[in-house]
Amino acid sequence: MTEDRHQERLSVRLPDGRSYPIVLGGGLLDTDALLDPFVGSQVLLVSNPVVAEHYLDRVRERLSVDRMVDVVLIGDGERFKTLDTYASILDTLIAKRHSRATTVVALGGGVVGDVAGFAAATYQRGVGLVQIPTTLLAQVDSSVGGKTAVNHATGKNLIGAFYQPRAVIADVDVLATLPEREFRAGLAEVVKYGVIADALFFSWLERSMDALLRRESAPLIEAVRRSCEIKADVVADDEREQGRRAILNFGHTFGHAIEAQTGYSAYLHGEAVAIGMAIAASLSERLGRMPRTEVERLHDLLRRAGLPVAPAGIDAQAVLTTMGMDKKALDGRIRLVLCDGLGSVSVTADTPSGMIVDAIRDAGGAA
Amino acid sequence: MTEDRHQERLSVRLPDGRSYPIVLGGGLLDTDALLDPFVGSQVLLVSNPVVAEHYLDRVRERLSVDRMVDVVLIGDGERFKTLDTYASILDTLIAKRHSRATTVVALGGGVVGDVAGFAAATYQRGVGLVQIPTTLLAQVDSSVGGKTAVNHATGKNLIGAFYQPRAVIADVDVLATLPEREFRAGLAEVVKYGVIADALFFSWLERSMDALLRRESAPLIEAVRRSCEIKADVVADDEREQGRRAILNFGHTFGHAIEAQTGYSAYLHGEAVAIGMAIAASLSERLGRMPRTEVERLHDLLRRAGLPVAPAGIDAQAVLTTMGMDKKALDGRIRLVLCDGLGSVSVTADTPSGMIVDAIRDAGGAA
Repeated sequence: MTEDRHQERLSVRLPDGRSYPIVLGGGLLDTDALLDPFVGSQVLLVSNPVVAEHYLDRVRERLSVDRMVDVVLIGDGERFKTLDTYASILDTLIAKRHSRATTVVALGGGVVGDVAGFAAATYQRGVGLVQIPTTLLAQVDSSVGGKTAVNHATGKNLIGAFYQPRAVIADVDVLATLPEREFRAGLAEVVKYGVIADALFFSWLERSMDALLRRESAPLIEAVRRSCEIKADVVADDEREQGRRAILNFGHTFGHAIEAQTGYSAYLHGEAVAIGMAIAASLSERLGRMPRTEVERLHDLLRRAGLPVAPAGIDAQAVLTTMGMDKKALDGRIRLVLCDGLGSVSVTADTPSGMIVDAIRDAGGAA
Repeated sequence: MTEDRHQERLSVRLPDGRSYPIVLGGGLLDTDALLDPFVGSQVLLVSNPVVAEHYLDRVRERLSVDRMVDVVLIGDGERFKTLDTYASILDTLIAKRHSRATTVVALGGGVVGDVAGFAAATYQRGVGLVQIPTTLLAQVDSSVGGKTAVNHATGKNLIGAFYQPRAVIADVDVLATLPEREFRAGLAEVVKYGVIADALFFSWLERSMDALLRRESAPLIEAVRRSCEIKADVVADDEREQGRRAILNFGHTFGHAIEAQTGYSAYLHGEAVAIGMAIAASLSERLGRMPRTEVERLHDLLRRAGLPVAPAGIDAQAVLTTMGMDKKALDGRIRLVLCDGLGSVSVTADTPSGMIVDAIRDAGGAA
């Protein structure tokens, strides 16, 4: 079956012939020959059982014309994002005799994309990689930009590589089966792009939030497109996170600390980022960078998306400690992304830790 | 102690500010501040017990001024070039809280360089790496060019990354403690550079072989310098082995198959490469590419270096099979590097498998 539904292409511009397209739209997984330019005669399809139940057969059908297709299913969830899972993917590539010309196709959310991407980055020193993100978070964030990784027992994403895919295929139709809470968590990253780079996009999100929550196709495509455009632009400027790419971490320094403080169980990543953005905005206001009205607009938009804006029962001082700031504060250099008004952020390193604690407390963290 | 002995610098020219120097000479490990431009305030020194006994303290002394230096010793030998060893290096980086600004210093031969290099390539998506090769093979080959890897139970170097060091420090003085057989095996790669790229260097090797075997400093420096120049030039042209870099594999396609056929126990890598070069030269002669006198000069030079030129008791057909040629021969495309006269090679894909078997047999392999 071939449907010709809405389809757009963005380009992530990189040197050395490594530029790649983000193909986005609806009905992509049912579009014949869509993947052909990006894969060779051998493919390893990596997914998890939950995603596989919905979409594996459709993707396999798109790929299997004159191709050898093998499949690895990895466990569903962050706890499977390990060196062991990575090694199991490599074992399959080797057992099934995949050559240097093979392509790893990652069909799933951030965990599948990150682990499969790291395997593609390092099998025979690098083979082809195509990302087919199936969560909103992965479509607007983790599948674009070439970060691959696994976790270590003591910390997230400590092991990995910068490795760019040949293509990202973002089909918004697959978001239909995403659990409500996961969908809303993905919206946090979408809102982030408005805050860091595009006030008009932020206003559009305010107007379109209800349609987005109904998962209407046209606004979803627009939200994914603009998010990917902004991310692609930042990544093209700073592939290896030496400078500007840090602005993508708006809300994340607080968010990561809150996730760690709550044992990665209380909040989804996007939820923690929403809280982190709310705190970062409040802190930006305290520092005279961001008008109160805009801070309130951000808080309102996050709330409308069903996202938390205050950490429940969190110890503000402990969050600061987790941020590693007790140590970094010694030389007074705390790196934070702060907002200078909707659509603009700066990376700063001079916020007193006392003000940071106050901002976390005001947001709802306990003393 | 600071000695100002002979010191030279070559440059491996790469894009995106990744060019790096190869510092070579004598007495480098006793030269103060030599490493300072290439390392930050944190260092993980990776070595093995055999090398560490001779050189660890000297390198640590060079590094320890105002620096936090941790050490990991890995097992000595190819069987420790595994994902497990790699994971143990990562564990130490994490346990000792190394930041993204840390530098991994690999002090040892090819195994240490490859495993430590892969850990540096993937810790926090890439940290600094300095190679201090302590074998002749590592100085003229594995430390230069950015290949990092570990083995898989079913094959060598199947997992790894292209990742360039910040610097390579090749001190020929450390070759004094190298076992004779390992030293001679390293000479095979030196001879290879003459064959593939520089007839004058080959003639110089013919004149200098006795002095090299006495491990005299000046000719050793010259041999390492010219080898590294040629490798750096090829790598600068083709970092990721898409084309010209294949010429570095002269003798290696046969050599790898002979190593595999003999369970990686009968021959050192350099010895297998010597046999492989002898076979490749004989085959080149059969095909009218290389004059018999030059084939004999190559065989003579390898013999003078104490290297084997004929595989003992090897089944020629089995070597062909191990080369994967039974399968590749189906479409008649066998990729081999052949010699067009000393100093020049070509990558070919049209040699009939029968002629390859004959060349192996003539070299001494059994029927």
